[in-house]
Amino acid sequence: MTQDAQLPRSLAALSRELMERHLSPVEVVRALLARVEADETNSFITVTAERTLGRASLAEREIMAGRHRGPLHGVPVALKDLIHTADVPTTMGSAFFAGHVPDHSATVVLKLEEAGSVLIGKTNTHEFAYGPTGDRSFFGPTRNPHDTTRITGGSSGGSGAAVAANLCYGALGSDTGGSIRIPAALCGVVGMKPTFGRVSKHGVFPLAWSLDHVGPITRTVEDNALMLNVLAGHDPGDPYSVNPASEDFARDLERGVRGAAIGLPTQFYFEHIDGEVEAHVGEAAGVLASLGAEIREVEIPNLWDTLHAQRLILAAEAYAVHEERLKTDPDRFDDHGLERLLNGENLRAFRYANAQQRKLRSGQEFGNVLRDVDVILTPTVPIPAPEIGQRETMIDGYEEAVYSALTRLTGPTNLNGLPSLSVPCGTTASGLPVGLQLVGRPLDEATLYRFGHAYERAVDPAP
Amino acid sequence: MTQDAQLPRSLAALSRELMERHLSPVEVVRALLARVEADETNSFITVTAERTLGRASLAEREIMAGRHRGPLHGVPVALKDLIHTADVPTTMGSAFFAGHVPDHSATVVLKLEEAGSVLIGKTNTHEFAYGPTGDRSFFGPTRNPHDTTRITGGSSGGSGAAVAANLCYGALGSDTGGSIRIPAALCGVVGMKPTFGRVSKHGVFPLAWSLDHVGPITRTVEDNALMLNVLAGHDPGDPYSVNPASEDFARDLERGVRGAAIGLPTQFYFEHIDGEVEAHVGEAAGVLASLGAEIREVEIPNLWDTLHAQRLILAAEAYAVHEERLKTDPDRFDDHGLERLLNGENLRAFRYANAQQRKLRSGQEFGNVLRDVDVILTPTVPIPAPEIGQRETMIDGYEEAVYSALTRLTGPTNLNGLPSLSVPCGTTASGLPVGLQLVGRPLDEATLYRFGHAYERAVDPAP
Repeated sequence: MTQDAQLPRSLAALSRELMERHLSPVEVVRALLARVEADETNSFITVTAERTLGRASLAEREIMAGRHRGPLHGVPVALKDLIHTADVPTTMGSAFFAGHVPDHSATVVLKLEEAGSVLIGKTNTHEFAYGPTGDRSFFGPTRNPHDTTRITGGSSGGSGAAVAANLCYGALGSDTGGSIRIPAALCGVVGMKPTFGRVSKHGVFPLAWSLDHVGPITRTVEDNALMLNVLAGHDPGDPYSVNPASEDFARDLERGVRGAAIGLPTQFYFEHIDGEVEAHVGEAAGVLASLGAEIREVEIPNLWDTLHAQRLILAAEAYAVHEERLKTDPDRFDDHGLERLLNGENLRAFRYANAQQRKLRSGQEFGNVLRDVDVILTPTVPIPAPEIGQRETMIDGYEEAVYSALTRLTGPTNLNGLPSLSVPCGTTASGLPVGLQLVGRPLDEATLYRFGHAYERAVDPAP
Repeated sequence: MTQDAQLPRSLAALSRELMERHLSPVEVVRALLARVEADETNSFITVTAERTLGRASLAEREIMAGRHRGPLHGVPVALKDLIHTADVPTTMGSAFFAGHVPDHSATVVLKLEEAGSVLIGKTNTHEFAYGPTGDRSFFGPTRNPHDTTRITGGSSGGSGAAVAANLCYGALGSDTGGSIRIPAALCGVVGMKPTFGRVSKHGVFPLAWSLDHVGPITRTVEDNALMLNVLAGHDPGDPYSVNPASEDFARDLERGVRGAAIGLPTQFYFEHIDGEVEAHVGEAAGVLASLGAEIREVEIPNLWDTLHAQRLILAAEAYAVHEERLKTDPDRFDDHGLERLLNGENLRAFRYANAQQRKLRSGQEFGNVLRDVDVILTPTVPIPAPEIGQRETMIDGYEEAVYSALTRLTGPTNLNGLPSLSVPCGTTASGLPVGLQLVGRPLDEATLYRFGHAYERAVDPAP
């Protein structure tokens, strides 16, 4: 991982330097583009070098002219390559869309542009976002910056790696079963899956309509809140979009956690997990307790049923999205992706209907627990990053498919739509990052940021 | 139909008489119980005679003591027999639940009791509400009070007939594809399918979770608004329940329709409909125009797709609801009901997923039209009441299954959840009622009542 002495690590710090004109957007993107050139993670499918310099130059002129647009002005960001960008290739990590240039931009892209951020490029994604490893893309596997023989996790693997490798200051991902949180955890960065409907999906290629979420990946919790401030908001173009009052997601960052309550689930989340992961997440709970939070054991029932419902809906909706392509041109899919997609063909509708009932009950089951605690703390992923191409893993004497293991702890809140934040909590002896997951009440992202920030500052006072 | 000279026709008028102590709840229910005794419509599965007299007597004592609870106090009502009532049999019109006595009451029952209304009995329903004719119940067919050889329509046929035959002052039905509006239209009474989630379904036996609605059937529009005032409201026990501000649904009844706009759809709703039905609904539009409303032709696209999506979801969810019974005891179902339920078994999940997408688009398509007009006016049912047992009908030279014809114009708003009111608009030459349907914006039941009331008063100044 390249770390450039003259560039600050956090988006928040960079933003201050830019606003105070101590750094120029053009020199920042020049430095980042040089890093991207030397990068070995295969994070980017498209680097928009010339366009990037043009936008950086525009931002520079605006800032110099005293027209500072806010915390993202001049800040270099990246976008998972299933988020449509007008005039910039958008491939979905697939042969079907190699070289495809959309004529419109997703709502989130327009929001980032309006905020003055500067696009560095489009990041690698597991083909059509249908896989949590990030190593099955038409454009090759994404590699973990902490060990390039290992996966980044996915599907937003390029966004996770690009942020971890300091190639940009924030990146967008999408999350249908964990695809933001998994690469965040495995690459050692912060990833937020906001409440379902909080961030517009208009112009984002779907994986499964009723489970898809869009959210930011950043190096610090504060950075993440600053990005969500720009991304959130009602969009009539997205039928799933919700319409709460607007808010500042960074407002509670410094409030601390004294007197607050953290729920630690007794089952499911701490079963069959790697010993080092368990130790790191347990230590993190201890850190939060030392900051004054109360740790309570909580029981969330039926989590396996919830996970199975999420998986069934995902398989059925993914098949629906790709039905035409599967019929007319199946061989253009990655072979493993094709096999997974076809598994959705014959699932039965009444099972899907039952899964929708489970979704409602899961919301109530988590809601019952979240009446008594402010957040639920779990590991994000039960294992550190497996090797590229690895498809089975042994956890706790229990053999599990890598795909299944990676999404096991993140999938439930895709079903019930609760906001879920992954925050780094140390590294294994072999240097692989571990992430903790904070799950909150509907629309209560601010509380997740508050807990995440308190933890982050406690373990690294100057991030 | 019995009409008792000393009892007012409308709930609103009865309510005033009760409040002013000109009538006693006990004498009212005695008169109604005598009518029920003589009734030939088979509207009731259970008549709660003794219990009814006890409740009436309680209401009488309260009113005499000056503790008047509001417009429903002492008013006799009936409940479709899939609405659970503690200590009163609740059969779902099925052999499976013959004699079944629940130990809890549905939320709507508690609300009606709190308002002081008096239950007359439980009304006949098509078996498990899965049919729009009302002639396939374990307890025999419901008969239309206007011609007892004809169906009431269903599935809330007993509620429609009981109100039309003056056996009660209001009744609850449920509506998954038209089951409130169809019997209202065919029996010549007023039926409201409120906005999805507006009225709690907690304690109401499901037909299809994502399409089921509960609502009132009454003789006048005002009566209907008075009942909805009691029924509406958020219920945490119903995961589909919405939570808008409370309101008085009768507030706009006298506002008139001058300057308001009515959309008349150019396709679908006026295709393949009986000539007399078409004429009556057209005349009704003329009446509203004469009251000062502007009539505009509107186009709502993809209505057949919308209808098909509603039918697919219905079949899949109904199978899910009855899966265990279908496996363990299929022969206890009505043979026709069994055949229909089994059709849901092999529907595929990705089709259901597509139908959910259609649901969202349908909401947008209706929403686009309802930006320009206040309500959409259509026939409720394309034909007058067929004969009991009749399964095919010829409309406009076009043969159609009766089940399909009956639900064709009501099904779309079960999918998109828009409020839909059926109001009587005359009778055919052979004396069979015709109904018009008013469709409105989400949560805008008040406007439907306003239009319905204006029309009703114009054609019958003293209902």
